[in-house]
Amino acid sequence: RKHLSRNPDELAKGIISGDKVALSRGLTLVESTRRDDHEQALEMLDKIRSNPGKSVRIGITGVPGVGKSTFIEAFGQELVENGKKVAVLAIDPSSERSGGSILGDKTRMNNLALMPEVFIRPTASGGSLGGVAKRTRESILLCEAAGYDVIIIETVGVGQSETMVKEMVDFFLLLMLAGAGDELQGIKRGIMEMADALVITKADGENEMNARRARNEYKNAMHLFPPNQNSWIPKAMTCSSYTNTGISEIWDVIETFVNQMTISGYLEKNRLDQEVFWFRETLKEMLIDNFHQTEGISQRVSQIEKSLHSGKGNAFADAKAVMNFYIAQLKDAKN
Amino acid sequence: RKHLSRNPDELAKGIISGDKVALSRGLTLVESTRRDDHEQALEMLDKIRSNPGKSVRIGITGVPGVGKSTFIEAFGQELVENGKKVAVLAIDPSSERSGGSILGDKTRMNNLALMPEVFIRPTASGGSLGGVAKRTRESILLCEAAGYDVIIIETVGVGQSETMVKEMVDFFLLLMLAGAGDELQGIKRGIMEMADALVITKADGENEMNARRARNEYKNAMHLFPPNQNSWIPKAMTCSSYTNTGISEIWDVIETFVNQMTISGYLEKNRLDQEVFWFRETLKEMLIDNFHQTEGISQRVSQIEKSLHSGKGNAFADAKAVMNFYIAQLKDAKN
Repeated sequence: RKHLSRNPDELAKGIISGDKVALSRGLTLVESTRRDDHEQALEMLDKIRSNPGKSVRIGITGVPGVGKSTFIEAFGQELVENGKKVAVLAIDPSSERSGGSILGDKTRMNNLALMPEVFIRPTASGGSLGGVAKRTRESILLCEAAGYDVIIIETVGVGQSETMVKEMVDFFLLLMLAGAGDELQGIKRGIMEMADALVITKADGENEMNARRARNEYKNAMHLFPPNQNSWIPKAMTCSSYTNTGISEIWDVIETFVNQMTISGYLEKNRLDQEVFWFRETLKEMLIDNFHQTEGISQRVSQIEKSLHSGKGNAFADAKAVMNFYIAQLKDAKN
Repeated sequence: RKHLSRNPDELAKGIISGDKVALSRGLTLVESTRRDDHEQALEMLDKIRSNPGKSVRIGITGVPGVGKSTFIEAFGQELVENGKKVAVLAIDPSSERSGGSILGDKTRMNNLALMPEVFIRPTASGGSLGGVAKRTRESILLCEAAGYDVIIIETVGVGQSETMVKEMVDFFLLLMLAGAGDELQGIKRGIMEMADALVITKADGENEMNARRARNEYKNAMHLFPPNQNSWIPKAMTCSSYTNTGISEIWDVIETFVNQMTISGYLEKNRLDQEVFWFRETLKEMLIDNFHQTEGISQRVSQIEKSLHSGKGNAFADAKAVMNFYIAQLKDAKN
């Protein structure tokens, strides 16, 4: 393989001009854990800030088997027909408990992937949640600078990453199957209340009636939820990626949401709140990393956690003791 | 007022013997922010560990006006009739956004407060959530050592304290009013999915039919939620503290829960997990406190947050810069 330029300035220019190869390479730079790559990535991100772009950021989640890939395939084509450029970023949950790999699914988005208006990137994750968050947010910025109008962030709905995605998107879409039985296994409690819209997939053929019934049940249930801060009432809908039914209605709902929230100022406010949220989260994670990298700490922490799990010790007193040890280590290092 | 002994050893003995005055004084010690009190509190807590007690810890939450105090009054008397000793700890949400004060309500629990088998403590809060958590958890331990069989922890259901209470109880009870209108205002999203049981209060007179209807709606809604890890299906019920209807049924449900979870081992596992949770939370809070107390940090952080809120800056880069400054400060202090 030929060596390709990774000059931050060239990459930024390429990305802004809409060059997909430059965008891919920019994303690789953002994902790299090498220190020199990291500095180049920061430089590149700084340069693309001149061209922030305007996009709608949509989080899509649902357990394996719900039909995320076929949905995104159909939904993405609908967006393209509406004149939109679409980027899809998938967070691979390999580092979390999971029932399936998104990456495997990617091969099924063939038609969408071939469209010139579409860019699909299965982001291999790994590392801490904070690390994934950082890379995903930076990837969003790159895609926006490249002129994509809709950025879709896809997760699996079984772990911590949904809360994270919720904090980086404008609209959060939950895909579900009809029936409240085994299909629900794996969805984390609390995710339903995070959704701006809940879509029952596979509403076709024999399953259509079930899907409609489920939609109505969820509609009633969501009506019972406490209201959102932005006074948006979450929608419950059905769709079939197979018959292409209900897909354009979902985009209608999202456009309505974006219009309403732009007028009310909530969209802008939410994004700024998200910036502050990520600043605080990143700081916390850096502090905790620094703590754990101090000599003797990790060992002490895991010993204490083992004792606590076997019913010995006291959470507060133990935390205080480790903290005292940490401070002593810092002071020791002074002399 | 006469000066009363605060000797940790005497207090611990008094508490274990069931002396309410000693318990009160022990709780005051736990709540104190004075450093010498703090050390005495730790000593006392260490001594009562010899008599850990066995109790069911119940979190009760609901917005102001739902009838928490009258419910606890009726529920507490039901428990006493079942031969239980009952302690009620109320977390005053004065430090959070709030629609009403629990403390004011306390005067309405007159009958319950007069019972010898009952101990009621309106814990004034204030301070950080971590501080409140610490005091509340230590208060639970004192009440258990004093021989109380049921510990009720009451909160208002509008802020962060519910998540905290969920992490220190065995069973989480959400009180709600019939009707999904304005009454829901103020309940935080996500709380419904945390509940082990949801009780519609004031199911009497003209409101009884409404309450039953609401109960059925919530029952259907909760059936749609993802299943709990412990495979408990949350219950939806009605009650009237006024006609004393449905109160004993709630205790039946809690007893069933405790029996099931004791057999499955979940009750024990959950408590140990909670210990580890609080160890990690406490450590995090201590690290963050230490960070914020470093010279120049608070000022920098609030400047950055202001910029981020006005659309300038970059969450990750800014966090990195503050972290570098912090580390430089620590290194500076070395020389």
